[in-house]
Amino acid sequence: MKPAPSTTPSSVVDLSERELVARIQSRLAPSPDWLVVGIGDDAAVLEPERNKLEVITVDALVEGVHFDRRFTPPAAIGHRALAVNLSDLAAMGAEPRWALLSLALPPALPCADFDGMIDGLAALARRHRVHVVGGNLTRSPGPLMLDITAAGSVKRRQVLQRGGARPGDLVFVTGAIGAAAAGLQLLSSDPSASDSCVSRYLQPEPRVREGLLIGRNRAATACMDLSDGLADGLHRIAEASGVGMTIDADLLPLDQAARAWFDAHGGDAIGHALTGGDDYELVFTARPNRVGRLKALRLHGSVPFTKIGVCTETRNVTLRNGNVDAPISHGYKHFH
Amino acid sequence: MKPAPSTTPSSVVDLSERELVARIQSRLAPSPDWLVVGIGDDAAVLEPERNKLEVITVDALVEGVHFDRRFTPPAAIGHRALAVNLSDLAAMGAEPRWALLSLALPPALPCADFDGMIDGLAALARRHRVHVVGGNLTRSPGPLMLDITAAGSVKRRQVLQRGGARPGDLVFVTGAIGAAAAGLQLLSSDPSASDSCVSRYLQPEPRVREGLLIGRNRAATACMDLSDGLADGLHRIAEASGVGMTIDADLLPLDQAARAWFDAHGGDAIGHALTGGDDYELVFTARPNRVGRLKALRLHGSVPFTKIGVCTETRNVTLRNGNVDAPISHGYKHFH
Repeated sequence: MKPAPSTTPSSVVDLSERELVARIQSRLAPSPDWLVVGIGDDAAVLEPERNKLEVITVDALVEGVHFDRRFTPPAAIGHRALAVNLSDLAAMGAEPRWALLSLALPPALPCADFDGMIDGLAALARRHRVHVVGGNLTRSPGPLMLDITAAGSVKRRQVLQRGGARPGDLVFVTGAIGAAAAGLQLLSSDPSASDSCVSRYLQPEPRVREGLLIGRNRAATACMDLSDGLADGLHRIAEASGVGMTIDADLLPLDQAARAWFDAHGGDAIGHALTGGDDYELVFTARPNRVGRLKALRLHGSVPFTKIGVCTETRNVTLRNGNVDAPISHGYKHFH
Repeated sequence: MKPAPSTTPSSVVDLSERELVARIQSRLAPSPDWLVVGIGDDAAVLEPERNKLEVITVDALVEGVHFDRRFTPPAAIGHRALAVNLSDLAAMGAEPRWALLSLALPPALPCADFDGMIDGLAALARRHRVHVVGGNLTRSPGPLMLDITAAGSVKRRQVLQRGGARPGDLVFVTGAIGAAAAGLQLLSSDPSASDSCVSRYLQPEPRVREGLLIGRNRAATACMDLSDGLADGLHRIAEASGVGMTIDADLLPLDQAARAWFDAHGGDAIGHALTGGDDYELVFTARPNRVGRLKALRLHGSVPFTKIGVCTETRNVTLRNGNVDAPISHGYKHFH
């Protein structure tokens, strides 16, 4: 394997596939011992983890659909492409293990942007001990696309699913919501904006640690991540579990900076927090008599979590605002 | 999960993500018992196979780069997207197990084409007992893209790699080569063409069975697939193994119809067979004293294989044509 050249060519089309792969490899952590065959053969070969189930997911970020290169720095693109997958693993209670990286690159993509993208991805991978074991590079005649497959492992009894909520279960959400939606609005109007909301949009922190703790703790009855927004998450858990939910508007943990931004710009902060995507928090349900167990989570330095409502027998998902109940709309979701 | 609607909407943009997923699910074989959580949660959960290594690979097919929708029917697009991955698994000696399907769809894609694509993919999956355990759907503002991750399993001692060839080892190739290159030329000039070469291009048969037998048989020292052409395969094995190769032009198993087509059209049949991609055959090397073991393969109804040359100490990859030796060019391969 050739070392990456020391000068930076102007665009990826100046490099061979092999040189691009070398640039990726030079940015990755050393191979773990369970990796039998890594990058450079027809496929990767690895040892599965004993006595664990394997959790696998794939997600794509497409330029012009999921990000705008005018205001998303390369490192943020790489970070987000992996984060969305780690968030899915977290929502299942899994510990991340490996990733495959499939990139479709417009020939004019500057090499420095390619490097930046891989740097952003590699930094997040290192922090969560995810190893990039292989992938694919192809030319794109259109948008830049990053398609990442990620896998993790989990004990059978600690798998978190969407379908286990029962009437009476309490509904919780980790961290704070709404910041990513505010950050995206801010960036769209001012590409050079930088504040806590912008950071939350550009560098979302997948709740891997929290998902693991919630799974191990065994208090939760259902869990999913909020990549498509809280409203979507609530509806999906409700549907998979055959319950309804009543969510208390006053309890929603709105990010303070996001609330200020929406208030200042005449926006409906709660509405944005419900429907805005890109908050990589987890929503989960737990039986009231097991909620005590959740307190242990606070001892582990994970982000706080907040009770926001309760599961109901009636199968509507509603928002209680003072004395008024209004349905939380799911919307007709086109594929995106 | 809703059943697929009985009438066909005109394009995929008329459907929600959920409806598209239902259309995929209705085309898949029932879930295997090792699948703990299938389509419909944040991620799929499965039991790894005991005492086996896991082999994983990802490959993308991009419209305008890897296929042309003007002359590639939807079923062939779906078939080829999975075939290229199964071929990678075959080259490692692995038995296919699961796949993840990530699609980026232009909104104008006709629904009938979407269905046809999935039908083509599902038929090949069923034949090789590969289960689609999940995936991702997204809109594409540009080309249609199919990104497939596939995984299989293999015993540790039966893994086939590229780096094990030694000087004196014989070089073999399965089946016949050149047909896909001829088929592609034919289709490009006449989109309605149909003959054996066209079929080989549109519906390549990954050599899964042969890869498994070659791995189990333990005669082979190196193996890879020919998705990027024989010349590429020879060079990569030579490089990974630190050997050269002398290939005998007279021994190359050129597809008869392809040879006829290239001869009739003033083309260099051997040149095309060497550099044309899309032949999903396997090239492998074996020690001369173990070649006897390979004969057992013939008993198993797999495609024939042909000795085409020998590995050498000198690290050149050359084609012997009569008494003339000429280097087989590798070319400067841009990412594609």
